[in-house]
Formats: sequence, structure tokens, C-alpha cells
Amino acid sequence: MQLKSTTNPYFVKVHEQDNVAIAVADGGLAAGTSLADNIVAQEHIPQGHKLSLQPIHTGEPVIRYGEVIGHATTDIPTGSWVQERHLLLPTPPPLDELSLSPDPAAPLPSLEGYTFEGYRNPDGSVGTKNILGIITSVQCVVGVMDHAVKRLKEDILPNYPNVDDIIGLHHAYGCGVAIQAPEAIIPIRTVQNLARHPNFGGETLVIGLGCEKLIPSRVNPSGNDEDIIMLQDQHGFHAMVDKIIEKAEAKLVTLNKRKRETCPVSELVIGTQCGGSDAFSGVTANPAVGYASDLLVRAGATVMFSEVTEVRDAIHLLTPRAASEEVAEKLVREMDWYDRYLASGQADRSANPSPGNKKGGLSNVVEKALGSVAKSGQSTIANVLAPGERAETKGLLFAATPASDFVCGTLQLASGIHLQLFTTGRGTPYSLAMAPVVKISTRTALHQQWKDLIDINAGTIATGEATLEEVGWEIFHFILDVASGRKQTWADHWGTHNDLALFNPAPVT
Amino acid sequence: MQLKSTTNPYFVKVHEQDNVAIAVADGGLAAGTSLADNIVAQEHIPQGHKLSLQPIHTGEPVIRYGEVIGHATTDIPTGSWVQERHLLLPTPPPLDELSLSPDPAAPLPSLEGYTFEGYRNPDGSVGTKNILGIITSVQCVVGVMDHAVKRLKEDILPNYPNVDDIIGLHHAYGCGVAIQAPEAIIPIRTVQNLARHPNFGGETLVIGLGCEKLIPSRVNPSGNDEDIIMLQDQHGFHAMVDKIIEKAEAKLVTLNKRKRETCPVSELVIGTQCGGSDAFSGVTANPAVGYASDLLVRAGATVMFSEVTEVRDAIHLLTPRAASEEVAEKLVREMDWYDRYLASGQADRSANPSPGNKKGGLSNVVEKALGSVAKSGQSTIANVLAPGERAETKGLLFAATPASDFVCGTLQLASGIHLQLFTTGRGTPYSLAMAPVVKISTRTALHQQWKDLIDINAGTIATGEATLEEVGWEIFHFILDVASGRKQTWADHWGTHNDLALFNPAPVT
Ligand SMILES: [Ca+2]
Ligand SMILES: [Ca+2]
Ligand SMILES: [Ca+2]
Ligand SMILES: [Ca+2]
Ligand SMILES: [Ca+2]
Repeated sequence: MQLKSTTNPYFVKVHEQDNVAIAVADGGLAAGTSLADNIVAQEHIPQGHKLSLQPIHTGEPVIRYGEVIGHATTDIPTGSWVQERHLLLPTPPPLDELSLSPDPAAPLPSLEGYTFEGYRNPDGSVGTKNILGIITSVQCVVGVMDHAVKRLKEDILPNYPNVDDIIGLHHAYGCGVAIQAPEAIIPIRTVQNLARHPNFGGETLVIGLGCEKLIPSRVNPSGNDEDIIMLQDQHGFHAMVDKIIEKAEAKLVTLNKRKRETCPVSELVIGTQCGGSDAFSGVTANPAVGYASDLLVRAGATVMFSEVTEVRDAIHLLTPRAASEEVAEKLVREMDWYDRYLASGQADRSANPSPGNKKGGLSNVVEKALGSVAKSGQSTIANVLAPGERAETKGLLFAATPASDFVCGTLQLASGIHLQLFTTGRGTPYSLAMAPVVKISTRTALHQQWKDLIDINAGTIATGEATLEEVGWEIFHFILDVASGRKQTWADHWGTHNDLALFNPAPVT
Repeated sequence: MQLKSTTNPYFVKVHEQDNVAIAVADGGLAAGTSLADNIVAQEHIPQGHKLSLQPIHTGEPVIRYGEVIGHATTDIPTGSWVQERHLLLPTPPPLDELSLSPDPAAPLPSLEGYTFEGYRNPDGSVGTKNILGIITSVQCVVGVMDHAVKRLKEDILPNYPNVDDIIGLHHAYGCGVAIQAPEAIIPIRTVQNLARHPNFGGETLVIGLGCEKLIPSRVNPSGNDEDIIMLQDQHGFHAMVDKIIEKAEAKLVTLNKRKRETCPVSELVIGTQCGGSDAFSGVTANPAVGYASDLLVRAGATVMFSEVTEVRDAIHLLTPRAASEEVAEKLVREMDWYDRYLASGQADRSANPSPGNKKGGLSNVVEKALGSVAKSGQSTIANVLAPGERAETKGLLFAATPASDFVCGTLQLASGIHLQLFTTGRGTPYSLAMAPVVKISTRTALHQQWKDLIDINAGTIATGEATLEEVGWEIFHFILDVASGRKQTWADHWGTHNDLALFNPAPVT
């Protein structure tokens, strides 16, 4: 069940069972081009479009990513351009008609002997950075916190060389919100779990105001009131700043004593998402991330994929990969919740490929979703997280989040990721302060244009310079290097990070 | 129709027609206490509770803030404690039964001769600060923008002494959003109008990515493509930063040539809101702001009050103040929209006074809402703004926003405020970078505790040291000083500002 790629630079076949592959050459494939396996292009096949690798007879399945993306409406000879009109489009069944009897493939062979250097935490988790985290119970306090954090970073942090950073978390929740509304559980849980992030080492400080709806003790991971600073109890601005600095320095003393130690890869929690996708996302970077995801799962780690609106139309191909009927039901429940959330806002899920998608070679909604789901590799889906839930299961998880890069990033941080693998075709400088974001380009041209922003180039898969497996292993090793503090992402090098963006489907008041 | 207060420190009467006043002495009023106007307390009246100023017979109206808050259920002698059980509570009529025939009072006499020193803008508006504004079309670009802005502020801004600041606007809109959903108009309009803020002098820069849903030209106020920097067009991080700095410095050259000139008060746009309210908010700071609001309106300025959930239960007292039936209809439309928005999230509007409110002396929902609405003074409501709409009418406006301090602040900035009057009882260090937030305390104790955060103390009204009118005038003069750059708010002095928080009732995707 491993992903396959060819070293032939003209096309990419993603899965060994695939009977179609994608033309990747600039300008596509000219009619008559001789390809690997004695295949000859029968006609011009545009870049990003599908080419048949064997004869496909009327009614037979057309297979990509190892999945049926449709059935042939006509006989398709080897080397043909397989277009939308040659495919009988599968209609994803309504959620209430899905089979929930999972049939996951046998587990991939386990992978032994890989380790990283991390910080062991009192709660059993492991951090990959040693950060003083300061969480807020409400936005009111942020101006004062920022003032104190700036002074701390400039004047005091240099005295504690084993501490990597001080991060004051900004978020828009805490007051002026319908905190009793049913969906308020999502932002509340998210803030609570951000405060518990493994990179904060269990030493998070809490800054509250005093009259907010989200009571500061609810977001205090230690449960110790000494870790909470209430601004309404302080005598003016200087007293507020002094109190924050005093409490923060005590935490720095503790954090500075911590040391990295060798940990098995099974302690890692890795997130994946895509942003600024292009026609190559599903061909190069996403399957390479999927391969790396499988390596991590084989080594016992936790890996999560997300982005409900991008997987929704492949749900009938995901439920069979669930570890149990209960996990399949959770998958369906998250899809159903999002369907209703979008409908309540009179939004269509933008599910059908756009004219631009089709021009890029995507024939239907299933094929589009599979390109995104390729990040999840082939592993069994061990569990499902509701938005902002902390990962407590190892293996591959579906963490239900919007596709929005910032919202997905924030929710995955709450779920406890140490690092996010982020594939991009168009390019985005997005990153997160709490955990490194590894930028993986789908095309070599982007890597060349953004040499000082892209961490790994998966465009080499399309040019035949590397295989999916090779790029997958490169990603895997890069993760271990970054998690151990031996290497840095470009975004962390520049110190350019994006704001958190909470997912709050409940009303503001 | 002017607000009245007594110099007697034992009680506060807000409006000349009121037949009840509020006991403000610490510990309340002991039975037998002799008060002004030959009134003697007939029983113990707790602090914050109501005292009758004249005999009120069964069935007669009980009047506070110049409005009927209920009818007497029994004969109430002068000097009695007027409690919830003495009042037949008025039920606010359903929105569809409201009279929409407005009957506004005659305008207050106009106020001539007051001016401030401002920056005249090409579009006819006037700025009170001279700021280089940099707006983003999507959150992706923020890390790079912040890096460039930091360098600009440290190395280049000092060369342009007439420019007050450089502000890069962070917001969570632009991509991963249901941009076609009906309610998407709210965040889109907000971002568009933030970019047009009068303090940016028509020289706003736009930073876009290149694949976001909110196309950068949609938020570019100048309409000139030269004012847009697209990061996907740049060759790497250094090129992005250099391009931003180059374009920004050209803008600084232009902005540095601007000079303040004398402008009539009618050019000012002032917002009001409350946050961290207490039992004194409706007695001291809010009516004082209402008095200042009337002064501003009398001088021809634009003043807006907001916070739908806090005025909702007094709507039947606001529609008669509307300038026309059309304005009354707009008021009702905004209330109705918010009712449906809250209901769709299964949220109750937290309209009925809480046990804490009642303990503090608020008898019913109308009285509570009137305490908030007191910020609007007595003027006719000239127009209503939907969330994020720019003010184009002078006089008193209702700008429909949530009560959330950050969301209200962001929406009022989009509506074009030069300054926000912010009343607080419990205290909050909240402020905004784009326009000063004037912090007005409801109690002297808060002012004493937060001497370096509270700009104006309205607690002197409760102690008899000042009248409502005196504090109203103090606020009015402070506005002119801050608008002219002669004085600074404490928050601006410390440079502590909160993040923008967009109101996006549409789904994220
Ligand atoms: Ca563990
Ligand atoms: Ca995404
Ligand atoms: Ca990063
Ligand atoms: Ca408020
Ligand atoms: Ca301010």
C-alpha cells in the first residue's frame, strides 16, 4: 500500500493501483511522446491532466490515489487524455447512507530506532521548544501584557539562555460572547488547550482582568491561583507591568533548568494542512507529506490531518479507513456538524471543482478532495478530534477544523502539535509562534522564487529529480531535526509569525 | 431637556423630569437623613437604589433618565425606597408592534465657536492624527508586514517628525471565509472602511498575498494599483520587506508635509461605549458622556452610540427619538437582525437584569438599558449605521454593533471615529491604536486605584464634587485637546493598544 512515483519526469503516478497518472511537464505532453513502461501519448495531454497508463474499458473504474474517482464512459486506450466527459462521476452518498463498517488495511510495518531531543513535561507530554507561555482570559489585558513581554524579552530573557522564547497569546475570546451557547465549547476548549501546549512545559502564566465571562481559573492549566494575575487587583499600570515581570521571571528560573533528552518519535504530535494550493498540490507535496505521515505513524507518533471542507467530498473513502465503527461515526458527525454550520450561514460548501480547478485537470469533487486527503497517507484513522480537542491517541487522527490556514493552525496547536507540515503551491509566508510551520512547495518554481521562505521543495517529484518516497523521508528527517532544535524553519529564522485565530461558531454579544 | 444633577453628595438625579434619584453614599442613606429640597429618607436606602423625590400615587409613572421605567403599584411617599415590587414593569413591545412615528424633541440650542486643530484630507474628512496606515487583504501577510513595520518605525519614521505613527492592521478576514454568504458584507465593509480611516490621510498602503478570496483591490481606498504590494509577486522574504519599506517611505514623504489647521468641531466623529460596567455607570459616567454627546451634537459634530444588546430593551424609548420614520425603521431593523443572529446561535440575549444587577438597584430591563443609553444624551437620532458602515451624516447616530468592547471599537473605527469615549466601573486598560480611547471612571475609587490609566473621573458626580454638566464639559474640552494633539490619553502615553476584532457573522470555511 505504499505510494509509488516514477522517476520519469513526464508524469506522476501516486499509488501503485492507479491506472491514470498526471502529466507534469511544462506545456504538457505532446502527442507521440514516448514514456516509461512503453506508454506513448496518443494525443496532447495538458499539464496537470490525466493520462491512462493501461487500457480502461467502458464501465471499469478509473483509479487515482488508489481510489475510484469514476467509471469509464467509453473504452480508453493506453496513453489517452482522460477527461471529465470520459468519467461517470461518483456521487458521494449522503451522510446518513454511509457504511460505517470500517475495513482498514493492515497496518504498515513499524519503524524502529528514530528519536529526537525533547523536553519531558510533568504531565507526560514532551515539548520540542522551551517557551514561557502567557495566556489571556480576555482581550482587554493584551496591551498591558505586550508591554511587559517586550520588556521581558529585551531585558530579562537574555539572562535565561535555555529558554527559547516568551509568547503572550492574543485571542479575541473571553467577554462580549454568548458563553452559554452550545457552540461556545469550541473556543473555550481551544483557549484551555492552548494554555496546556507541550512547548510551555506546564509553567503557563494566566493574565485576567476580573469581570470577564471566561473566568481566568478556567484557562489556568496548573490549577494554582498563584499562576493568575488579575489586572483589576493591581494599583495602576506600573504595578500591573511589575507584577507580570515578577511572576514571569520566577517561571523563567524554573524553565531555564530544563534540558533536552532523547525521546522516541512516538512522543511527537505533528499536524498537516495545505494553503494556497495549485494543480501540483495533490501530485507532489501532499502525497509526499502523506508518505512522511505514514513514516511517523509507523514510528508510533501522532499525526493529524484536518480541513473539513476539503475532505467532505471524500468522506465515503475515509470512513472505511476508520479504526472502528465508533471512529467512523465521529467522522460523519463532524462532517454533519459542518454541513449544518455552513447551511445556517447560507453558505454553499464550495465543493464542486471550479472552472479553474477543471482547467487544471481536476475532473470532479472526489478527485479534488483526494488531492487534499493525500496528506493523510495510507494509515488507519485511529481517532477523530472535535475542534480544539487535545490529542490523546497515537496514530493518524482526523482533527476537525475549518480549512482556513490560521483557524486550522490555531486548532491544531490546541490539539497539541509540535510542528505543522504546510504544503503550498501559490506560496504563503504563514507561520505560527508556538510551533514551527514547515513550508513545502508543490513546484520548483516557487522554491526558486522564495528560497528564503520555503523549507522543502516537493517540486522535484514532478521533474523526476526525486521520488515521493525520497521527499517523504526528507520531510521525516527535517521534522526530527527541527523538533530537536538542530534546524530551524525559515519563518522561525525570520521571526515572522501570524496571529492565532479562534474558531467561534457561537454569537458575540 | 438638559441633564440635571444635584451637588448634594447623597443622591443623583439624572434628568429634570425624574421623580426618583439614586442613593450614592457609601453604605446608602440611613433612615431620617435630611437631603436637599427638604426630602428626608423615610427608611434605609441601599447604595445604588432608588429614592422617591416626590409623592408618587398608585398608577402614576416612575420616571428615571426622563423616561417611564414603570408605574407605581402602591402610593409611594417622598423619601421612600422604590423597589422592584413597587413597579409595574413595562413590557417592551415586540418589534413589529412598535410605533414608527417619531416625535423627537426640539433640537438643543446650537453651540458656536469651538474648534480643534486637525489635518484636512483630500476626501473632505479631517484627521486628528497623521498616521501611515497599512491594511492587509488577508492574515497570511502579517508576519512579513510586522517585520517591515518594525524596521520602518525604528530606522525610518524618526526622519519624518510630522508623522505620528505607522500602523499595520491585523485582522482575521480575507481567506478561508464564506465570502459569498449574505452576512459577509459586514467584515468586508469593515476592512474597506478601516482602510479609509480619516487618520490615514488617504495614503493607505495595501499588502496582499495573491490567492486570497478578498481581492486586494477591493480594500484599496485610493483605487491606484501602485498602492498595493502583492507578496506572491516578490522574489523572497528580503524582496518583500524591501518593497514594503520602499513604498512606505514614499508615503512618509507625502504625509510628513501635512500640517494641522483650525477646524470646526462639526468635523469631529466621536464614538461612545461602556465596558466593565457597575451600578454607577448609569448614574455618573454614562450621563456625563451623554451630556458631552449633546454638546458635540449642538456644535454640529457626529456622535455615535452602539451596543445593540445593551439598548435592545429600551428600543421603544429610542424610536420616538428618531429623526424620521425611515430612521426609526432602520433602528428596528438592526434590533431584529440581532435578535435573529442570537437565536440562530441558540443564545438568549442576556437582557433581564441579573441578581447582581438587582442587588445593585436596577429594577428591570428598561432601567438597565437606559443606563447604557444615557451615553446618547437627549439629542435626536439622526441616522442609523449598519455594522461597519462609514458615518456620512452629522448629529447623533446609532451605529449597530455588538457590545463586545473590541468588536464595538473596531466597527466604530470603520465608521470613522476620531476618538472613543469609554466609560468603565470595574476598569479595563482597553484601547485602540488608530484613535484614542478616553477612559472615564464611574467611581472615584477606580480613578484612585488606576491613576495612570483613567483619563477622566466621573465619580465626582456621586460625591457631589462636580455636577454632570461640569464633567460633561470636562469631557468636551478633553476631546478638543486630544483631537488637536495637545493632550494624550494614558493608553496612548503607554502605547498599549488592543487588537482589532472583526465582526464576522458569516461562516468560516
Ligand atoms: Ca508521553
Ligand atoms: Ca488550509
Ligand atoms: Ca514558524
Ligand atoms: Ca462595550
Ligand atoms: Ca488609545
